Amino acid sequence: MTKKRPFAIVAGAGPGLGQALTRKLSQEGYNVLGITRSKPSSSISDTILFAQVDLADTQAVKEVLTPCLTRYGTPEILIHNPASLVIKPFLETSAEDFTRAWKSMMLSAVNTCQAVLPQMLEAGRGNIIISGATASLRGGKNFAAFASAKFALRGLAQSLAREYQQQGIHVVHAILDGIIDTDTSRSLHKLSSDRMMKPDDIAQIYWQLIQQPRSTWTHEIDLRPQQENF
Amino acid sequence: MTKKRPFAIVAGAGPGLGQALTRKLSQEGYNVLGITRSKPSSSISDTILFAQVDLADTQAVKEVLTPCLTRYGTPEILIHNPASLVIKPFLETSAEDFTRAWKSMMLSAVNTCQAVLPQMLEAGRGNIIISGATASLRGGKNFAAFASAKFALRGLAQSLAREYQQQGIHVVHAILDGIIDTDTSRSLHKLSSDRMMKPDDIAQIYWQLIQQPRSTWTHEIDLRPQQENF
Amino acid sequence: MTKKRPFAIVAGAGPGLGQALTRKLSQEGYNVLGITRSKPSSSISDTILFAQVDLADTQAVKEVLTPCLTRYGTPEILIHNPASLVIKPFLETSAEDFTRAWKSMMLSAVNTCQAVLPQMLEAGRGNIIISGATASLRGGKNFAAFASAKFALRGLAQSLAREYQQQGIHVVHAILDGIIDTDTSRSLHKLSSDRMMKPDDIAQIYWQLIQQPRSTWTHEIDLRPQQENF
Amino acid sequence: MTKKRPFAIVAGAGPGLGQALTRKLSQEGYNVLGITRSKPSSSISDTILFAQVDLADTQAVKEVLTPCLTRYGTPEILIHNPASLVIKPFLETSAEDFTRAWKSMMLSAVNTCQAVLPQMLEAGRGNIIISGATASLRGGKNFAAFASAKFALRGLAQSLAREYQQQGIHVVHAILDGIIDTDTSRSLHKLSSDRMMKPDDIAQIYWQLIQQPRSTWTHEIDLRPQQENF
Repeated sequence: MTKKRPFAIVAGAGPGLGQALTRKLSQEGYNVLGITRSKPSSSISDTILFAQVDLADTQAVKEVLTPCLTRYGTPEILIHNPASLVIKPFLETSAEDFTRAWKSMMLSAVNTCQAVLPQMLEAGRGNIIISGATASLRGGKNFAAFASAKFALRGLAQSLAREYQQQGIHVVHAILDGIIDTDTSRSLHKLSSDRMMKPDDIAQIYWQLIQQPRSTWTHEIDLRPQQENF
Repeated sequence: MTKKRPFAIVAGAGPGLGQALTRKLSQEGYNVLGITRSKPSSSISDTILFAQVDLADTQAVKEVLTPCLTRYGTPEILIHNPASLVIKPFLETSAEDFTRAWKSMMLSAVNTCQAVLPQMLEAGRGNIIISGATASLRGGKNFAAFASAKFALRGLAQSLAREYQQQGIHVVHAILDGIIDTDTSRSLHKLSSDRMMKPDDIAQIYWQLIQQPRSTWTHEIDLRPQQENF
Repeated sequence: MTKKRPFAIVAGAGPGLGQALTRKLSQEGYNVLGITRSKPSSSISDTILFAQVDLADTQAVKEVLTPCLTRYGTPEILIHNPASLVIKPFLETSAEDFTRAWKSMMLSAVNTCQAVLPQMLEAGRGNIIISGATASLRGGKNFAAFASAKFALRGLAQSLAREYQQQGIHVVHAILDGIIDTDTSRSLHKLSSDRMMKPDDIAQIYWQLIQQPRSTWTHEIDLRPQQENF
Repeated sequence: MTKKRPFAIVAGAGPGLGQALTRKLSQEGYNVLGITRSKPSSSISDTILFAQVDLADTQAVKEVLTPCLTRYGTPEILIHNPASLVIKPFLETSAEDFTRAWKSMMLSAVNTCQAVLPQMLEAGRGNIIISGATASLRGGKNFAAFASAKFALRGLAQSLAREYQQQGIHVVHAILDGIIDTDTSRSLHKLSSDRMMKPDDIAQIYWQLIQQPRSTWTHEIDLRPQQENF
């Protein structure tokens, strides 16, 4: 990765939306660091770097990000993307399930935001996009662990927006109200592919949010397939 | 206006946002019909036509729109934009004030949507963007007439989205949470212009909403200046 | 009606919830004025007076209420209750349907609140309860007229609360998220009666809201049958 | 505690609201188990039992509650009440602060609900009231840890209501939008006491929620002092 390109981080860069985002930002001229739990088989491009870190591990996040920030500069963009779906009757959802859901979606956001915000604030600019879900707005049967973690993330996103927007940090909470079209979701859901959200379409919209002029910043946006009931 | 261009309608095309929208759509290749209460002094371009109609007058709206639809074809876009701010203590706000606010913001939306939807449905596609405000989500002291009309409009937008989205009509409710930068608002509010929303920036974002692919449609989005508290 | 009892008004006092409310308030020691569109066959009690007025007619409301206020004193309670359900495809809902829905639910609230608030404010106390519905929070297919009117009413309720709460006026928006058990609804909906809301149960809860001490005022509450999905 | 009285549990039974709730339920005829972090100096009544447990410790909660359920029977009421306010700039709020806030407010609710729900479900009845705050609906500057934990709790409450309401479990999320009047808050906030919420008033309203008939159950209610802006 050449140092002359601006720098972006995608936390939760697995197959599907994560990789579509890293690809899009790379095409738009960024050096992109994609953080995943499982090591991707190969590097996709010389402007995309993948790191395998447990985002819930505060210390590990710091250790991976600090040298990257030194090397690639102040990140202009942080996208927070990890979602670990838990669907279980409440009484079968253990305290560990709740903890894991919260750590993987919420604590991971805290860790990555805290790693990049000091530099962003010094620069007086930066974009943070946090991916929400249907369950960010509505709890439901069998969704106690997932919904409570996604609600938490929305509370965090609002707090960050209200704390840092006037210092130049644009914080967006994007509610993905539908199934994302990936190999995994195609095998899980017997849903026609035109009822799913295309990762590249989401990436395009995230890119537009990042480009918004300072006179018109969005904090919350919902996205869903045309065929989705809501 | 040549018949070969696609057709768009801006209801509420006065100075400020309305004219920025007509201009933007014209630049993007549309024939644009702008509807205003007060006659604009001159035509701005040969792809923009202005009509002076009271949008709350169901019959008048039909009479103006029907020949336009015949002439320019099925509209791809309808943007509903009129906002008549009423700020008064509740006990000084007359039944007429309430009626006027509701008619100018809500009934005008009913009239224009009903005029274009049959053709849009037949075409299986169309975009309707309805402009909301801070008061769409929150009633407030001295805002009873304005907030209740804007709440009504949000209820309409949700109903239209849930009724027609699956038939190809994209309905967006855009919450403009800030003062729009116009000559009028500059003289009214002693607000630095960089705390206001630029009409051209809003127009650009509306244009992006219209372009959203069917896998990722937004129903509600908020927009505010970076310096705005919320 | 003896003048020594406190005074309450139920706007929308037809069979079902309206009459349960008048009965409850009468039992709790109030003189109650019930306002309906259609004349009730007989007076039920000597502490309940019914008046037949079109609540959307500002002048008529004043003409009926002014002598009552003179005679029975400052009302402690105003309950706004009229709901005229409209369920129709948007394109079959006429401008008149929209106007009628808005007038019967929203303008009627403006008229009655404006008739009682000056006296309530002078007394430094008063309770206004406005009945909402599922559609107060969510627009839906075939609900454009009803939802937009109920949204408007919620915007009004919030505005009144924020304008007058600190002057001693308690404004509540009660969301009735279910079918009310009446003769009409039993014949309309093939719903087991234990899935409906009992008018007397709602009346009891409204009474508790009226009794709330000043340290703990509710602005919004939802109510639904145990068996209701939500 | 005699075994003939019905049984209620107050999780978070410290001075202020917690003790007002235990007192109220005891007066209404219940055996009450109050769970606190710090041991109360003395037992207040022979129908109130206090236990000192870390509610975030799943195993400890089970160990304390299991013998109580055996001894006092199926609880009719569980009130979840712990709130540990954290107000700090986001960048000074450590991962430990976030974890502590989430555990003390959210995981504690999971643990106590899981301990009582199996018996409640077998009985086909039960009441769970979860105390929220202003920050349950709105994130804010310096409130990232507190708001995200309170948002999470709201997601949990909604999920539980939608999962168990039809099986007879009444789940309420009560938004306490104001400062509760306690010795601590009087010394912290220079707020006149009539701008604070009285613990006994809240307890009275919780009691009414518990008494709601099955035809009219509330899921969400807000409470605030008359003098509070909102």
